[in-house]
Parts: sequence; C-alpha cells; structure tokens
Amino acid sequence: MPELLLDKHKCLRNIERMVRRAEQHQLSLRPHCKTHQSAEISSWFRDFGVSGITLASFQMAGYFAKAGWDDILIAFPFQPGELEPLQVLSEKCAISILVDSPAALPFLNHLRNPVGFYIDIDTGYGRTGVRTENPELIEQILVKAGRNPQLHFKGFYCHAGHSYKILRQEEREAIHQKALSDLEGLKKQFNEHGPRILYGDTPNCSIQNDFRGIDELTPGNFVFYDLVQYALGACSLEEIAVAMACPVAGKYNHRGQILIHGGAVHFSKESLTLTGRTVYGQLVQQSQGGWIIPEPAAWLTHVSQEHGVLEASEEVFSQLSIGDTLLFLPVHSCLTANLAREYRSLEGDRITNIHSI
Amino acid sequence: MPELLLDKHKCLRNIERMVRRAEQHQLSLRPHCKTHQSAEISSWFRDFGVSGITLASFQMAGYFAKAGWDDILIAFPFQPGELEPLQVLSEKCAISILVDSPAALPFLNHLRNPVGFYIDIDTGYGRTGVRTENPELIEQILVKAGRNPQLHFKGFYCHAGHSYKILRQEEREAIHQKALSDLEGLKKQFNEHGPRILYGDTPNCSIQNDFRGIDELTPGNFVFYDLVQYALGACSLEEIAVAMACPVAGKYNHRGQILIHGGAVHFSKESLTLTGRTVYGQLVQQSQGGWIIPEPAAWLTHVSQEHGVLEASEEVFSQLSIGDTLLFLPVHSCLTANLAREYRSLEGDRITNIHSI
Repeated sequence: MPELLLDKHKCLRNIERMVRRAEQHQLSLRPHCKTHQSAEISSWFRDFGVSGITLASFQMAGYFAKAGWDDILIAFPFQPGELEPLQVLSEKCAISILVDSPAALPFLNHLRNPVGFYIDIDTGYGRTGVRTENPELIEQILVKAGRNPQLHFKGFYCHAGHSYKILRQEEREAIHQKALSDLEGLKKQFNEHGPRILYGDTPNCSIQNDFRGIDELTPGNFVFYDLVQYALGACSLEEIAVAMACPVAGKYNHRGQILIHGGAVHFSKESLTLTGRTVYGQLVQQSQGGWIIPEPAAWLTHVSQEHGVLEASEEVFSQLSIGDTLLFLPVHSCLTANLAREYRSLEGDRITNIHSI
Repeated sequence: MPELLLDKHKCLRNIERMVRRAEQHQLSLRPHCKTHQSAEISSWFRDFGVSGITLASFQMAGYFAKAGWDDILIAFPFQPGELEPLQVLSEKCAISILVDSPAALPFLNHLRNPVGFYIDIDTGYGRTGVRTENPELIEQILVKAGRNPQLHFKGFYCHAGHSYKILRQEEREAIHQKALSDLEGLKKQFNEHGPRILYGDTPNCSIQNDFRGIDELTPGNFVFYDLVQYALGACSLEEIAVAMACPVAGKYNHRGQILIHGGAVHFSKESLTLTGRTVYGQLVQQSQGGWIIPEPAAWLTHVSQEHGVLEASEEVFSQLSIGDTLLFLPVHSCLTANLAREYRSLEGDRITNIHSI
C-alpha cells in the first residue's frame, strides 16, 4: 500500500535554513506544526533551539503538549466550544489564542489560568482577522479584553495567505510590503501595549529579505515544502522532503497511462495547474540516497479514492512494470501528510503523527 | 471540533432502498464498503441479508475480515506487493481480486489457497480494465490463469465511472446502455466459463431500471449519498445521510462571510461547481430529528486546511453567532468519511471506522 517517505536529511536542511533565516533577521521562529503533525518531527526543531510552536487546533495542542511543548500558539480564532480544553491546557502550558472579534471575549470570562492572546490581522487575505482598516475594532477588543484579568494581550498575528494565490513576483512583493507596513502602523498605533508582531507564511518566509517590524516568524509548510511551494518559487524540487511511494497496479498501452495505488485518500484532491493540465503529484525517480528529479517531468493527472493515473512519456512508460514502486512529490504536503497518518524514513523507520494508530 | 454526524435512519433507508432495487431486478447486492469503511455500518447490511462485500484495498479487507466478512471482492487490479496479505486472507475468507492484465498473473503462481478473480472491463471510463474492444486480451488472461490451479475465474467486473462526469441524462443513459451491451456480449462470447457479471456505480444503480445480463450490483456511495450524487440526480438532498458539524469561529460583516472550523482535513478538497461557484459543502439546518434543507441554499465556498468559509445571505448571516454549530452536507461523502475517522449518530453514539484510534 502507499506510504509517505520522508527524507530526514532534506527535512533537517529545510528546518536549519529557516532557523538561520530567522537568526539572520533577528527574529524568533515559532514554526507551525500543522504540516507534519508529528511529535518526533517537532523534536527536531527543539534540537535547533526552537521553544515555541504554532498550531491550528486544540486537538493538535493536546497532542503536542503531551509531547512536552509548553509554549503554544493556537492560530485559529477562538471558539467557545474549546473553553474546556483551553482551561486544561493552560494549567501546564503557556497558551496563546487568536481573537478577531469582541464577540469571542465573553466566552473567556471564567478562565482559571492566564492565557495570552494575539489579535488576528487581515491585511488582504480575507479569511480571518480584523482588517487593518478597522483599528476601532482592535481598540474595542483591547478595551473589552483589558477587563479580563486572566487574558493577556501579546500582539498581532498575520497570515498573508493570499501570497499563495498570486504567481507574479511583483504582486507577491506588494502583498508582503502591504502586510509589513500595515503591521508597522499597528505596532506604532498600539505601542503602549508593546505588541509583538507574528508573521509569516512559507512563501514569504522563504523568499523575502525585508522583515522590518516583525518579531516572530510562524511558517509551517517549509518543513517539507511541496509542488505548490515550488510553483511559487519558495523552494526547489530538490528541497521537497516527502514523496508518496505507490505501487504500479496497471499499464494501459492504448492510452500510455500507468495506474498506481495512490489516490485522493493518499494525496488529497488538492491540484495544481501545470502547463495547462491539472496535476496531483510529480513523478520522481528512486535512487540510492532517496530520489532524484527526472527530466522531462511526468505527472499524476487523475485521482479517485484509491486510484491514481500517471501520464507517462513513451520512454518512461516502456520502463515501468506492474509491481514497481513509483515515488511522487505531493501538490500540498500538509494535506498529504494529514492523510498519511505516519511517515517512513529513507532508513526504514516509522515516524508517527497525531493520527497514527 | 468538527464531527461527522450520521443519520442512521436515512442511512438504513438508503440501504433498504438499494436492497429492494436489487431484489426487484433479481440481482445480488455486493455493496462497496469504501464509502463508510466501518464494521458497524457494514453490519447493517448483514441485517438485510447481504453476505458479500466489495472493497478497494487489502487494508480494508483485513479490517472487514476481522469484522466477520468472509466473502470479499477487492475491486482494485491486483498488485504483486499484496501477495502476502492475499495468502493470509484467503486462508479464512472467500477472496476475489481483479485482474486486467496477463502481466499480473505470474505473481499469483504460488497461491496457497483458492482465490477467485474477475476480469476488470473498461466500457469507456478509461481508468482500469480491459477494453471491451480487446477480447484477445481477455482470452490471454483466461488461458494464462487457467494454468494456475488455485486461481478461479468468476466473471467480469465493470465500474462505469464516467457516469459521474456527465450531467446530461441522455449521455448517462448512453454510457449505461453501452456498458450493458458490452457486458452482454462478453457474457455470450465467454459463455463456456459461466461468467458472473458485476456492475454498478451509485448513479446507475440508483436511477436505472434496465440491468439485463447483470448478476450482481456493487455500488458504495448510496449508503450516505452526497452533493455530487444529488447533482447527478441519484438522490434527493433529504436522502444524504451524513453532515459535518462545524463550530462558527468568526463573523465578518464587511464581506458577509462566516468562518467555520471545518476545512480540507474534514471535508476534503473535492469541490462541485454549482450556479457558477465552487462549493465544498451545503448548509443544512439542525432540527429536532436531525437536519432540514433550508431555502435558499448557502454553501461553503472556500476551504483551507482547518478553515472553511460560508457565503451567507444577509438573513442567514444575521442569525449566526460565534459558538454556533453549523451542519453541512459534503460534496463527496467517501472522502469526508475517510477523513472523519469516526461518526456521531444523531442519538450521540460514536460509530468507529477503519481509521478510528
């Protein structure tokens, strides 16, 4: 059956590179662990001196707290239904949450322990957050939260996720610059509170060199990277640290296609448009030390639940047989890793994650 | 956190309706269990007299064999890497596999126990199978397999998956009629082997009334149905038996959008184009006995890993608050159920599946 291979050396290099970038710009690094969702992989960050992490849910927070992390930001607007997990976690960890509305605050009135909060800022992505253009709302949140002795304002958090949508370099640059100047403005305007500024999606953290005003970076995907990041120019194909290993189950001469066992429940349905076609993964070639990137590229062009179809050139097609194992770089490693439920290192070790049975 | 609600009564009605349809046409029903992947739900089929099931992988086969199923078809072209699980399973169960190439047969030379096989037939879908236009290949498979004393030809299997792609009724009708006449032709041509004919995707099994020549139906999705099936006319919205319950985490006045905790790791990234927009789920309204379908429809129009965005009308928007729980019908219930890892019945019971921890 398909399994997700992890090249630990590539992964460690990706981690080290981001650690060095943060150091170089005198920033803290609070990596988002939603990509790998693995206690073991998170421990590799600890080896680089990382002491705080970013997560997407209380489910993840419970898992990583058990793994020894005690400085956790849950980067998702607080939901009242999560009060009890918050009470429990805040007994043993420094927990921060996101707030983007005064409406969430009454639900935090009976906190038993101190909890930090960041105000989520929307500089144009339009998914969550208070728009920069609406500082009155920030003021309202601060005033209301100020009456809660257990709730401590830490600063502003911004995920400029729209940098994922734009492939033109100058548009991405403009998104980044607007975010920086918006956040700089807020830092100044709310200076009396000494806000920390948390920022950073993987594309911007990988590419940009201007982080003025920022205190902490919170990217996640860079730990593995993927084809989307490659398409955005955030990584090379060689830096992608995971590949899905799938057995060849069929070979169809009349249409030059290879069937693999590997579908939407392995890769996810996330696709990418490359040279006019929809792709779900890119073929790489197994090698002594892991895998190499062959030319010309070949892609997985169709996935259903358990099936995947590889469009292969005549040359590649002729070399493949039923029973071979093929390796594919994933389009979106976060979703692929979430489905995989465990990793297999190139050395053959099983690396578990939050979903491992 | 999000959870997948299961309306057991709707589910039982869906099962009963398909059982009755099969009876009415004097067909066996061998339901595909890849949709629910749950031993408990499979037991509801047993209560209706179903004794054989269809599965998509050896992983599922191991799970369902443990749950007491002993007549299993693995409807995926056999891969050599699965020989050992096949040897183990065939000790205690009647196992059949799919074959669509003579190249797979040498890997089955050392079977320790009898194994049945169906030849997978491609009547136009183009994913797996021997094309009907290529009976020589069928002949080759039969001759080669005939030399293997443990390998027993059972018949032909066809999944006309292209009926999912075509929304026009007459095109779907043509796909179904071609499949029937192709399979009829094969049944006649290979009559000496007394082949059984297995057929049936959920749309065709739900809608069609002509099943001439078919012996067994193998649909899966009908157990829950979903928005894709609704769009294909295979079910009503009221018949969809699962809904994802997601907490409201944000409310954004300036764009009339609601943020829910519920994203690609809950719904999957499978989308559907409805009235010109891409949707990932449809809002339903919680009611005493489960949920009802409100008018006008409101849809989940954006999902990222853990986030979902609901486009709400002014009226719906004004009624929602942070902390509410919203219910959504999934676009593709197989992928949503695979991600959910368990179900919650309307009565509050936990129903486990293959991925439950």
